[in-house]
Amino acid sequence: MTARRPKAEIFEVGPRDGLQNQSRILGVEAREHFILSLLDAGLRDIEVGSFVREDRIPQLAGTQALLARLDKARSRYKKLSPRFWSFVPNRKGFSDALETSSDGFSFFIAASDTFCLRNVNRSQEDLFQELAQLLPAARKAKRLTRVYLSTVTYCPYEGPIRPAQVLRVVKKLVDLGAKEIALGDTTGHATPRDMERLLTPLLKVAPASRFAMHLHDTRGLSLANVCQSLEMGVSKFDSSAGGLGGCPYAPGAAGNLATEDLVYMLQQQDLLKADIDLAALARASHWLEAQLGSLLPSKVLKTLKG
Amino acid sequence: MTARRPKAEIFEVGPRDGLQNQSRILGVEAREHFILSLLDAGLRDIEVGSFVREDRIPQLAGTQALLARLDKARSRYKKLSPRFWSFVPNRKGFSDALETSSDGFSFFIAASDTFCLRNVNRSQEDLFQELAQLLPAARKAKRLTRVYLSTVTYCPYEGPIRPAQVLRVVKKLVDLGAKEIALGDTTGHATPRDMERLLTPLLKVAPASRFAMHLHDTRGLSLANVCQSLEMGVSKFDSSAGGLGGCPYAPGAAGNLATEDLVYMLQQQDLLKADIDLAALARASHWLEAQLGSLLPSKVLKTLKG
Repeated sequence: MTARRPKAEIFEVGPRDGLQNQSRILGVEAREHFILSLLDAGLRDIEVGSFVREDRIPQLAGTQALLARLDKARSRYKKLSPRFWSFVPNRKGFSDALETSSDGFSFFIAASDTFCLRNVNRSQEDLFQELAQLLPAARKAKRLTRVYLSTVTYCPYEGPIRPAQVLRVVKKLVDLGAKEIALGDTTGHATPRDMERLLTPLLKVAPASRFAMHLHDTRGLSLANVCQSLEMGVSKFDSSAGGLGGCPYAPGAAGNLATEDLVYMLQQQDLLKADIDLAALARASHWLEAQLGSLLPSKVLKTLKG
Repeated sequence: MTARRPKAEIFEVGPRDGLQNQSRILGVEAREHFILSLLDAGLRDIEVGSFVREDRIPQLAGTQALLARLDKARSRYKKLSPRFWSFVPNRKGFSDALETSSDGFSFFIAASDTFCLRNVNRSQEDLFQELAQLLPAARKAKRLTRVYLSTVTYCPYEGPIRPAQVLRVVKKLVDLGAKEIALGDTTGHATPRDMERLLTPLLKVAPASRFAMHLHDTRGLSLANVCQSLEMGVSKFDSSAGGLGGCPYAPGAAGNLATEDLVYMLQQQDLLKADIDLAALARASHWLEAQLGSLLPSKVLKTLKG
């Protein structure tokens, strides 16, 4: 069955989704160093920050300054041609992001209305209306776009989410012209069978290339879910260096799928599109462990110690 | 593809493979309590001890006494009809095991000759000759048998192991009448593609029902490998409560696949044959954590805390 699988691409979320959940706060300089190390390892798509209120998420304060520094470093990574993504939570964040050289903007919505309310204090309908304005505006400003669609199999407040509910949201997002939809198994409940039940209807309304999987390893299932997704043609995966992160708003959600674990599995099967240097990636994560004063959960990272 | 998958069975190795790798030593009474808790959770096949020299592996000292105690408890588990397995490393261990009520005997060999030498200080050929005597003798004594075939994809001393090398060993074992062969990814290097490459030739010489997978979660790949194995019809899996264990003789080998993680994934997909009580299983592992004074690695176990 190997032959049917497409080659996979990685979207690194550590510097944003990962760091925003850490109690120890890193400054702009440290975050720049971390991001440049990830580029050195060959990662191209990196979510570097967020245009949120700095008093709300101090971990990501100074994203504008960070992007300015990263912009200056571009010339050293011409061959890689990095894409620095930013999380844009609302209109205010959008206008701030437009003033930077951020290559791509990512937006948020959830399949569960309750999760929208609890996570960003806004209804799903409200978020749809905003996306209807911001997605075309981002494209007009020549920025790449993606939409995080959270709680695609399970909501910490509503419980199991039915594929039909996700399908309705995806249809709307496709109608709004969402280029890439990152399907978030926010709480890490999903099994390969859930992936199958989720993706089967979705792939009838949009091609596999429109989807990315944003998996959490809460129950150790993320690599199995990657395999199932690849089997069905979906080949973009969000991950974070070292398995950093988690979702601060979702009770019981553990770290993101670790980039090292994903890279190891894909490389061993010749299923990774980019040329990633796993040892360099591990060095970046080990450096980050020292900065944060705690060990990261990636299993492959532990085998690369020393 | 769900329909093609057979229902899975679990072979619990925590009380043997798991405990023998712990620095803190549990007495016979504590081990009995642990094993009875596993029966309470619905696990039927449990490797409870080993007939090794007690000065070599003090963690498993008193296996004979343990089996005597467990035998007395059988009447309380009539419906489950437990099968208490013992690891039998050599002729001396075999004659000791024969004096107990152990339902099944498990033996060891490795695809890598170097691993045989380093692990038990005997050549692969020597182990084959012993198995040729002990397997029929065990059957004659009405005991169930299984053979652990270690290093099926990677040897810590020899490096990658080719499927053809494993095939040769499996053919010999089948000729010797080995009822069940537990294929050990000792170092946790294997990916689903390795599973596919390993099992494809093996399933031509013996039916899937003759194989079990003994996976280590060193690189977080064991659940993905379970899915691939199930896909190919192999449906028996070794696991240890809490993910206890590892292989003391294999550098870099981390814990066994955790029974909780396996049970969660299989139950959620309606792929588990037995009726396992996951909460009861987690209670057994939490009790063990308290005994050992350390946390166990199972991810699902962490979500069941408190």
